Amino acid sequence: MPLRPNRPLPLATPAGVEVLTRILTQGPIPRVQIARRTGLSQAAVTKAVAPLIEAGFVTDEPVAPTEGSGESQLGIGRPVSPLTVLADSVSVIGVKVTPTGLIGVTTDLTAGIRTVRHSPLRDSSTETVIPRIVELARELMDFLDDQANGAGPLIGIGVAVSGDVDAAHGVVRDSPFMGWREVPLAATLTEELGAPVVVTNDVRALTVAEHWFGVGVDADSFAVVTIGSGVGCGLYLNGEVVSGAYGVSGELGHLPLAPGELICTCGRRGCVETVASSDAILARTRETTGRPELDLAGAIELAHAGDEHAREAFDQAGEVIGSALAAMVNLVGPELVVIAGEGVADYDLYEQRMRRAFSAHAFGAAGDCRLMLRSHTFDDWARGAAATVIRSYVRGEPPLQR
Amino acid sequence: MPLRPNRPLPLATPAGVEVLTRILTQGPIPRVQIARRTGLSQAAVTKAVAPLIEAGFVTDEPVAPTEGSGESQLGIGRPVSPLTVLADSVSVIGVKVTPTGLIGVTTDLTAGIRTVRHSPLRDSSTETVIPRIVELARELMDFLDDQANGAGPLIGIGVAVSGDVDAAHGVVRDSPFMGWREVPLAATLTEELGAPVVVTNDVRALTVAEHWFGVGVDADSFAVVTIGSGVGCGLYLNGEVVSGAYGVSGELGHLPLAPGELICTCGRRGCVETVASSDAILARTRETTGRPELDLAGAIELAHAGDEHAREAFDQAGEVIGSALAAMVNLVGPELVVIAGEGVADYDLYEQRMRRAFSAHAFGAAGDCRLMLRSHTFDDWARGAAATVIRSYVRGEPPLQR
Repeated sequence: MPLRPNRPLPLATPAGVEVLTRILTQGPIPRVQIARRTGLSQAAVTKAVAPLIEAGFVTDEPVAPTEGSGESQLGIGRPVSPLTVLADSVSVIGVKVTPTGLIGVTTDLTAGIRTVRHSPLRDSSTETVIPRIVELARELMDFLDDQANGAGPLIGIGVAVSGDVDAAHGVVRDSPFMGWREVPLAATLTEELGAPVVVTNDVRALTVAEHWFGVGVDADSFAVVTIGSGVGCGLYLNGEVVSGAYGVSGELGHLPLAPGELICTCGRRGCVETVASSDAILARTRETTGRPELDLAGAIELAHAGDEHAREAFDQAGEVIGSALAAMVNLVGPELVVIAGEGVADYDLYEQRMRRAFSAHAFGAAGDCRLMLRSHTFDDWARGAAATVIRSYVRGEPPLQR
Repeated sequence: MPLRPNRPLPLATPAGVEVLTRILTQGPIPRVQIARRTGLSQAAVTKAVAPLIEAGFVTDEPVAPTEGSGESQLGIGRPVSPLTVLADSVSVIGVKVTPTGLIGVTTDLTAGIRTVRHSPLRDSSTETVIPRIVELARELMDFLDDQANGAGPLIGIGVAVSGDVDAAHGVVRDSPFMGWREVPLAATLTEELGAPVVVTNDVRALTVAEHWFGVGVDADSFAVVTIGSGVGCGLYLNGEVVSGAYGVSGELGHLPLAPGELICTCGRRGCVETVASSDAILARTRETTGRPELDLAGAIELAHAGDEHAREAFDQAGEVIGSALAAMVNLVGPELVVIAGEGVADYDLYEQRMRRAFSAHAFGAAGDCRLMLRSHTFDDWARGAAATVIRSYVRGEPPLQR
């Protein structure tokens, strides 16, 4: 039974979708600017906007001028009335699943985070995790239902999981971190929650958030590279996030750039993650220091204190991540690379060797791309899941089709 | 001075470009089918088609039925009259530049090759090569001018060169094979020839040809991987050939997947080409067999005869090419990989190890992509250059803008 979003968008044509997307990601924006950027006539823009204003998703009322901007508009004559999305018109829930806990957020239509809930997990089995996702989502749904919070009606729930996730069918095909295979997560959650559920790869979700509400608003192409418990990559190329013909893409952590004798958690040999995941760094540090009791925080502390064994483990990781970044830019040549993930908190331990390896292997002008650090919170992953729901909602894609 | 194509296309709107592209790449195709695939109204399609028919680029006259297809149309009533491009309405010249020779072709508007000319080179200096390109192009222009050949007027000349080619400025930034750096090829040739010249990376040109006139007509995404004197890759993702924000992409031959002690012709360490280029295979075979007089044909012959040293050199190449293919599909997940280039003539020598390494490193469903062999002729490279001109012509891009 297909579920309809609680508050359907009045979008009947591709032009309408295009226009709302511009207002959502580039607003406040005048009609004439939308016409210029989309190639639509001004009349077509006005026609597409009217029902969105009528239904309360968009406004052309003058927005309160921000400080300093009021003065400059004086004397220009009739003020242009730019179009702005009414962020509170709907709400979205985003959940990021990790082996040790769930992070849930509610956002508005512009992926602005309104509430955050964390929920620790004692194990990562589907028997434990799925009921907890249901519980967390229900809590957030109750929060949204409470009129006092002023939130718009819920349009859908996004769930982000690492690994090979078949978003079209809502199935987690293979998530080594979670130990999940062929889990029909979307169907189960939809039945339990009675709301449309989008299941997506976590790094791709982060990339969708950057595309619509982050660096992608200004960049023609970019990559999001995440370092931490895994090494992942999302790509935005030719106007769209790369999703892979068979659902797999951006598996930077599984390029065969590390020594072939190392076996990855995925079972393959020489994957980047055999050296560069936080578990690999910890294992290496334990081994070389002869201190099996160390945890990751301890290894990081040792490295910061200058312990050469611990530093060497981070150096190796930096080296392989730098080579992987070079491999990626040599292949797809993005304008910008955003480095994210929980590993960026200790980026200073990787950075030097990473940049050196990157420079050594980046080919010609591909090396001109800017490497940009994105400070990390786990909430961003959950927000990515919400951004994926927003995108499906605006585009009228399953399970949020109109 | 911008040059205008000899026979400008009557395309005033993005819809017109879209409609002609469909007819060109998917024709013969009925108007209703174009409307369905583009989301345009039938009226809009008809309006866009009218000036193209009027100007003699497209026809809706019934095409002679191919054998066996006539019968099935009986009794369906009024026959649909599909739209077809008039291939001879214009002509294009494509040139592929290699260190040992030039290959020039003329094609029609559908990139169908009409004539081929080869021109050997005694060295690869710009002083030698550029005058020879001019000479070859003039010969082909004379051929086209001859009314007896029935060719349409020339719209432009495409030139394909390997390496880092800045197509937007028509400059060969860095071509290690040719030994060229910062060569303003388009400007020089345009002045000499008085015709619009498009300069492009050779593998990207091959990819454009596959996109518009090859596998891309049916595949949503694909990669073209070329093996031979170099290892290259063209990517078609999200509806467009990937060009790289800084002009570099698809440098599969320069992923750092080979041993770090090997130094590449590009100066970097551990590039795929240090093991997998035909020169690397030859050097390795000479070394291990102790036969410095061998040429590539000799090394291939030895390998085919079962010589273990020669076979080992091809095995190593196959291993690294397979790893590189896996790295590429793990990152971008194409539907299909087309393997091309002069190396495919001896594909049997690489294949087993290549497939084994590919399977060992392809991540999850990314490995489902089909590997497809494209038999190789050097003429295909020149045709790719012509296809690039056709695409710029239809889209009204520089230097063929309307």
